Amino acid sequence: MSETKPVPDIVIGRLPIYLRALNYLLAEGQTITASKDLALRLGISSAQIRKDLSHFGEFGKQGMGYDIAHLRDQLRSILKADRVWNMALIGAGDLGHAIAHYAGWEGKGFRIICVFDNNPQKIGRNLGRFQICDIATLAERVRELEVEIAIVAVPAQAAQSVVDKLVEAGIGAILNYAPITVKVPAGVQVQYIDPVIHLQRMTYYL
Amino acid sequence: MSETKPVPDIVIGRLPIYLRALNYLLAEGQTITASKDLALRLGISSAQIRKDLSHFGEFGKQGMGYDIAHLRDQLRSILKADRVWNMALIGAGDLGHAIAHYAGWEGKGFRIICVFDNNPQKIGRNLGRFQICDIATLAERVRELEVEIAIVAVPAQAAQSVVDKLVEAGIGAILNYAPITVKVPAGVQVQYIDPVIHLQRMTYYL
Repeated sequence: MSETKPVPDIVIGRLPIYLRALNYLLAEGQTITASKDLALRLGISSAQIRKDLSHFGEFGKQGMGYDIAHLRDQLRSILKADRVWNMALIGAGDLGHAIAHYAGWEGKGFRIICVFDNNPQKIGRNLGRFQICDIATLAERVRELEVEIAIVAVPAQAAQSVVDKLVEAGIGAILNYAPITVKVPAGVQVQYIDPVIHLQRMTYYL
Repeated sequence: MSETKPVPDIVIGRLPIYLRALNYLLAEGQTITASKDLALRLGISSAQIRKDLSHFGEFGKQGMGYDIAHLRDQLRSILKADRVWNMALIGAGDLGHAIAHYAGWEGKGFRIICVFDNNPQKIGRNLGRFQICDIATLAERVRELEVEIAIVAVPAQAAQSVVDKLVEAGIGAILNYAPITVKVPAGVQVQYIDPVIHLQRMTYYL
């Protein structure tokens, strides 16, 4: 795999979408796919798909299509989706419960291993198979449990202070469900779950 | 505004992200921005941003940057985010509660106006300011209340059957939180809330 210059972030952003599509195709029993078929399925041009993948080497033979399992394995490896990532969940409200019980984590390499809240009424109680921990113990537990990723599921007004604590604890990647943009130092990544973005994409066509 | 040929879907998909960034800039008190600044903020090249916006006309003068409020208003109008959309929420579990109470709907033009479930224990009870309705009454209520968009917050194994009911009831846009790809007829749009996609985008860099 040749990686001479950094791959644009927008390309990296499309790889998980390709990976998801390949997993669906495999589940449907297919073994070979063309960039044209992927394009149709994803609404991304086949030229774009070929160009994106070419950043990482040669995956398909001209006119032969892609071996789905092989390309899937390569993408998993590129995205480091072939290992298990330990995650902390911050916020044990309705959303925290939904995230902790989310069936979509299964087999994807992301594992919630601890849950935090700052509410004395919740600390020590169970959320599914987790005991809710005091957010004051975040730093030590993150170190102890080798947590690398955190999910923020707290109200908007609490999100920045939670994110500050996560950064202090050495977390490098944060998935934020709170409807607020948070500030982080360079080197810390934040992604947002923002339903409005998805809805606006559809209303254009309505 | 000239719209001679259809704008690629991938371009439409970026417009809500531009709109969100412009709203942040306005909130920060800025009035003018350059595609270069937007590019830096979003990790999308400035050439791409200019090309995307050029599909809809001329928004900035060469070297002068964009008038943020004007561009924001134009994007709102293009995305039909300048009106209010009535939404139905399907699923009154933890996730349904979190979605119904989500603070991020505020001022974005999306309004949940009814909540459905199929659980007799939940039907008739309140979820916040909503009375939970029987999913069996979906079609008539969707018609009555002029619902155009639905949010699916049910378990994976129930999602397809709920989506089928929504399509039957005439819903044209579905935001699916369930971790499963659903089948819909041509002309019905589905977007997915998929935290794994966001996480994989970050693990590449970890």
